[in-house]
Formats: sequence, structure tokens, C-alpha cells
Amino acid sequence: MRQGNAILGQSGGPTSVINASLCGIFQGCQRHKPFRRVLGMRFGIEGFLQGNVIDLGREKPETIEGLRTTPSSALGSCRYKLKDADLPRVLDMLRRHDIRYFFLIGGNDTMDTIHRVEAYCKAQGYELIGVGVPKTVDNDLFGTDHTPGFGSAARYVALSVKQAGMLARDMQRVDQFVVFQTVGRSAGWLPAAAALARSADDDAPHLILCPERPFDHQRFLAEVKAAYDRYGWVSVVCGEGICYADGKPVSASTVTDKFANVEFGAMGGTSAAMVLHAMIRSAFGWRGEFQVTESLPMCAADRVVPLDVEEAYACGYRAAELAAEGQTGVMVSIIRQSSDPYRASLGTVPLAEVAVRAKPMPPEYLDPERSYVTEACLEYLKPLVGPLPEYVRLEGIAPEPA
Amino acid sequence: MRQGNAILGQSGGPTSVINASLCGIFQGCQRHKPFRRVLGMRFGIEGFLQGNVIDLGREKPETIEGLRTTPSSALGSCRYKLKDADLPRVLDMLRRHDIRYFFLIGGNDTMDTIHRVEAYCKAQGYELIGVGVPKTVDNDLFGTDHTPGFGSAARYVALSVKQAGMLARDMQRVDQFVVFQTVGRSAGWLPAAAALARSADDDAPHLILCPERPFDHQRFLAEVKAAYDRYGWVSVVCGEGICYADGKPVSASTVTDKFANVEFGAMGGTSAAMVLHAMIRSAFGWRGEFQVTESLPMCAADRVVPLDVEEAYACGYRAAELAAEGQTGVMVSIIRQSSDPYRASLGTVPLAEVAVRAKPMPPEYLDPERSYVTEACLEYLKPLVGPLPEYVRLEGIAPEPA
Repeated sequence: MRQGNAILGQSGGPTSVINASLCGIFQGCQRHKPFRRVLGMRFGIEGFLQGNVIDLGREKPETIEGLRTTPSSALGSCRYKLKDADLPRVLDMLRRHDIRYFFLIGGNDTMDTIHRVEAYCKAQGYELIGVGVPKTVDNDLFGTDHTPGFGSAARYVALSVKQAGMLARDMQRVDQFVVFQTVGRSAGWLPAAAALARSADDDAPHLILCPERPFDHQRFLAEVKAAYDRYGWVSVVCGEGICYADGKPVSASTVTDKFANVEFGAMGGTSAAMVLHAMIRSAFGWRGEFQVTESLPMCAADRVVPLDVEEAYACGYRAAELAAEGQTGVMVSIIRQSSDPYRASLGTVPLAEVAVRAKPMPPEYLDPERSYVTEACLEYLKPLVGPLPEYVRLEGIAPEPA
Repeated sequence: MRQGNAILGQSGGPTSVINASLCGIFQGCQRHKPFRRVLGMRFGIEGFLQGNVIDLGREKPETIEGLRTTPSSALGSCRYKLKDADLPRVLDMLRRHDIRYFFLIGGNDTMDTIHRVEAYCKAQGYELIGVGVPKTVDNDLFGTDHTPGFGSAARYVALSVKQAGMLARDMQRVDQFVVFQTVGRSAGWLPAAAALARSADDDAPHLILCPERPFDHQRFLAEVKAAYDRYGWVSVVCGEGICYADGKPVSASTVTDKFANVEFGAMGGTSAAMVLHAMIRSAFGWRGEFQVTESLPMCAADRVVPLDVEEAYACGYRAAELAAEGQTGVMVSIIRQSSDPYRASLGTVPLAEVAVRAKPMPPEYLDPERSYVTEACLEYLKPLVGPLPEYVRLEGIAPEPA
């Protein structure tokens, strides 16, 4: 293969393991012939356009190695949507730094960026190899069994819902419900992962609301009431992007309290969890809390799944191998062979396909009868989240008469 | 000492280690003479009044041992304020179960409960030993260096703020600020603990708002602007109960956006973090997020501080010893000898004092110049939270010209 420099970038929202992918690409580049220098773009393609380039080869080896366990996006990230008018400037930067290998770690917009840069360079007669490494906590990326970053975020969700569920159970004389909101605007993979928290019938969560299913206010309240009647308290998990059948986001709902005061309206800054909280309180008069962790599951390195770190690294390393072999226009993908025991291999998927498609939860993962997931969904999720801690529960045996 | 049964109860909000105290009392009772059976009250004094008593001696030993690492309140909890009219019923229940030793794990209201039950029994000629075990994540309990449960919740806060700060730094091209809210209505110990997240100058948090200091809107915005000018992004941590100088809670503020729409008003369900978020957005037009974890730090057993578990257990065990020695009307307290290396011993404090006093942050722990804490505060907090994970940061060295 043609010798040249490589450039690495991170794009979109961070994850707890995206730096492990960065480490993987870097170390893969070090071990293969065609790569001379390994550069990094600060703040993604946006920083690259502004000339913000660093030499990763001049970092201390222990810094590079430490990336495996460092959360967030060490290079800095962006959400810049590349314009056609930017392409000449990109090519100019590639030429200036003699870059022949172009790696980005990100989601579908990022894959679109690589794809367009690669196509433009080809049209201009500039030889460039472009390979993508998958990343997203939402797990909605097409063409891969799952994305590095998802398992660790899912574990954060499952741990939070499990532990907060124990608290809600033990505090049912004070608060009757808890609503936990996850990120994931259009895919329900993260709320679904909360189901792994449940081992006994009365464990949290009791309802899981995914964006794939339209939200129905009356049906929701009926399910909440049924859970309360059964358990004495209720745990609800929702994706931030749940919508009514007409496409209106639940987060933009107007909820009126018993005195007909509007509690929430179409204001910025509200969230689905707050609206659900207000709905339950208005309907039943119960006390409860809403938990909105926002990006916390995207940067919680102390709660990562070891498999997730390994796969994130492996996807990065594989991207370097593929580039060294001359493959271009592809994203590394994970192909699952088996769930129990978990076995998977790495493959590739064309960037052009990843860029334009998404991966919502399949219908067979959603319970048709109630707001919950199916056994098939749990089987899919289990190896990615890993075993959760086991806690004890008192049997509560009555004393014999004194 | 007089032989008799013991009863154990948990009260108020759970912590990640309150079950370790329960385990400590139980095992302390097992190893001392006067205790015959060890009973438990379900859902605190409220459940006790309803006759909800179990025999902890009939639990499997591995269940009792497992309490050390199980979060929340295994017996169930309550926030019931004992009425004088309830006291005869309490005495009736004590007699019925031949209870002579009365242990509750909780905060100041709980210590008040033990104190009043003990005083009433004495007046009625019923011999009863009452000993309290401290617990609260807020750390606002009088008479003890700190409370079991605080260190682990503080660690949760510090981890969250540290990791979310890295994310905010790396995403500064997209979002310019992040607001993290902690529980703790009137004491700032938990927001203060976020300061342990900071090792480099630009690390999170940049502002810490404690309820001990009146909130000033203009001063707040000036400090936010100064941090932004210095770092390019801003991390704010606030206690849920911060108030204006006139005592009005910040969470009840009305914030108007640039189109003069009211974004937040005196509605139920808002929170200080949301209001601060709206204030920053309205003033500067930046994007950002607010994180409201509510009770999650109170039940996160996977993030506990080992010292906290040990001390929670030790306080429980010591309560049983004190009771066996005939001491009554006291709460076990932690007395610090040294911060570095950390050394502490156990003492006692009269229940009557704990019941009526509180422990806000002392003035010398709050920076007089800005919304931040002092070195003395950090020294106090450090051993309780333990070392935080270390993450790498790229040096970002520019490439030599190609």
C-alpha cells in the first residue's frame, strides 16, 4: 500500500469507551507498514477544517495506553454537518499533511462524512483510504449487531434502575413512583436495557416506554395503576424521544394539575420524565421523583462493561488493519454468532449504507400487550451489559409469639 | 443487663450503606448476652405502629451478611413524624414483643423518635434502652464528624461531575455548559464534594452553589461568564435547596426567555438545576444540559467507598455494644483524629442534642470570593470520598511540517 500519514477523529456524543477505539486505531497503525505519522483532529471535522491537527505519535505511550480506560472523547468532538463547500478545504488539509488514511469514530452522520470525503478525493484524483469505526450509546447504527459504547451506557441504565427500584420499594410509604429517563431520541435500546435489572416479579422496572411505540396517555395511566395495585409502587423507564401517535413529543405535553394550573407546556428544558411524573401525580395524587441523567451514562468509565472496552479497541485496531489492506469506504461492524455463550466476529459494512439507514428496535423485541420488552430482547441485551450485582432481600418471617 | 428482645429499624431516605449498619447491629446483638431475639420493624416506626414486625434471627446468615453490600433500606423505611398520641401504642408493641432494646438508624428526626420513645417508657416505668445509629447522605447531622452514607453519595457526585466535566470539555463546540444538581435541602456537603473532581485548573466543577450561601442571579451569571471566558465551557454544581437572600427557593424562580415566554415558574416538579440551566441559556444563548439524579446517589452500591461501608457497620456494631453495657439515650458518633492519614474513633452524643440541632457547612469551608469551597473543606472531604479514578489527557502537540 501507498505510504502516507493517517488522521484519526472522534465525532458526535462521547461514550465511555470511544477512547478505547482511538487507542485501537493508533496501536493498529503503529503495527502496520503504510502508516507514517498518526495525526489527530481536534474537535472532529470542524476542528480539522480550522487546521486543528495534533501529532498523536508525540504523545507519551502511557497516555495512549491510558485512553483504554478514559471516558469521553480525548480528541474533542463536534456535531458539524459537512457541507459540499467544505470539501475543497478538507482536501487542501489532507494534502498539506500528506494524509492518505482517514479514520473517524462515530455514528451515521460521521460515516456520511467519511463517505463524502473519500468520494470527493477520488473524483479529484487524490488517493485516500477512509474507514469508519462505529460508536453510539443509542445503538441505532445500521449494519452492526451493536455499537461499542452501547453496552456500557446500557449497564449504567440497568444499574440505576435496579438500585433506584430497591429504594422506591423500600420507600413506598413515602414516594409511590419513580421515572427514569434515558437518552436515545428515536431508538429504545437504552430504556429496554433497564429490563435486565429485573429478576423478581416486583423488581423495577415495571413499565418501559420506547420511542418505537406511540405513547398513549390513558393506556399509560392504566398500566401505571395496574403496577401500583400489584406492587404498591411503580418504576417507569422512558426514552427521551417518546412521542404520541401524531408524532408530537411527550416532552412537549401540557399537563394540568387538579387546580387546572398548567404544570408543563411546550417550553424548552422540559423532559419526557418530568411530563410523565406530572401525569402520574395529577392522575393519582402520588409523590414520586424523576431522574434525568442526560449524558452521565456516556462518560461513566467506572461502570463500563469489560467486553465493551475490548470490542471498542478491537474495532479500532481492525480499522487500521483494513486500511493497511487497502480497504476503503467501509465501517467495521460486529457480527454476533451466538448469545449464550456470547461469540462475535468483526466484519465490514459499506459507509454509504450506514449513512442513510438506522436500526430501531425490531417489533419482536417489544411486548405487544404492554409497555415492556420480550425475552428475545433480553437474550440480545444480556451479554452486552454483563452480570449485574446481586443484592439480598429479607424474607421477612414473622416472629413466633413471645 | 436485663435480658430482652431487641428491635431494629431504618428511617428516612436510604443510603448505599445503611444496610451495613443494620448488619452491624444484628451481628453485635448476636455476640452480646442481653439480647434474646433480634426483631426488625418493617417501614420504620410507621410499620411498627401497624404491627409490622419480623424476626431477623430467622433470616439466612448469608442474607444478613449480604446486607453489607446491599443498597437501600432492606427493612423498608418511612418518614413518619411520631405523635405523642402514638406513644401508648408504641409501648404496647414493645411489651407485646418483650422488647427492651430499641435501635433506629436514621437522621435527626429518627433520633428524636428514639429519644421520645425512651423518655415515655421511662415515665411509664418500662425499662428500655434506646441507641441511635447515624445515617444521612446530606451529612447535616449534629455531633458526628460525618454520617455513614455521606461518603458514598459524595463519591457518586464527584464521579459524575468529573466524568461529565470531561464530556463537556470535549463537546464544547456543541454544548457550552452543564448543571448537576445534588440532594441536600439545607446543607452543601454534597455539592461541595464535587470539588474533589478537580485536579487541573480547567477541570469541572467551576462553580459550586451551596444552600448555606444566598443565591444572587447577577453574581451567578458573572461567575458563569468568567468561567466560560477562561475555559470555553462551564460546569455548575448546585444543591437542590439553594435560595435567594429572602429565602425564596431558586427552584421556584420565574425565568423569561428572549421572547418573554415564561420558561419556569412556581410549578411543582421543577428543580434548581433546570432554573439555572434556563438562566444561563436566556442570558448567553448557549446550549447545555441539566442532570438531576435525585435519589440515585443514595442507592448506588457499586460506587460505595469501602471506608463508608466499614464505618456504617462499625457504628451499628458499636450501638449493640453500648446497649449491652446499659448505655441509653445516645447516638453513636464518629470522631476524627486526623485527616491525613485518616484516623477516627467512635463516641457518643446525646439523642436530645442531635434531635434539635443541624450541621451546615462551616463558613471556613466556603470561599468568600466566589462560588467554591476552600482547601480546608477539601481536606475534610478527601478521606471520606477516597481516591477517584485517574484519566489521561492528550498533550496535543502540533505536528512538524510535512
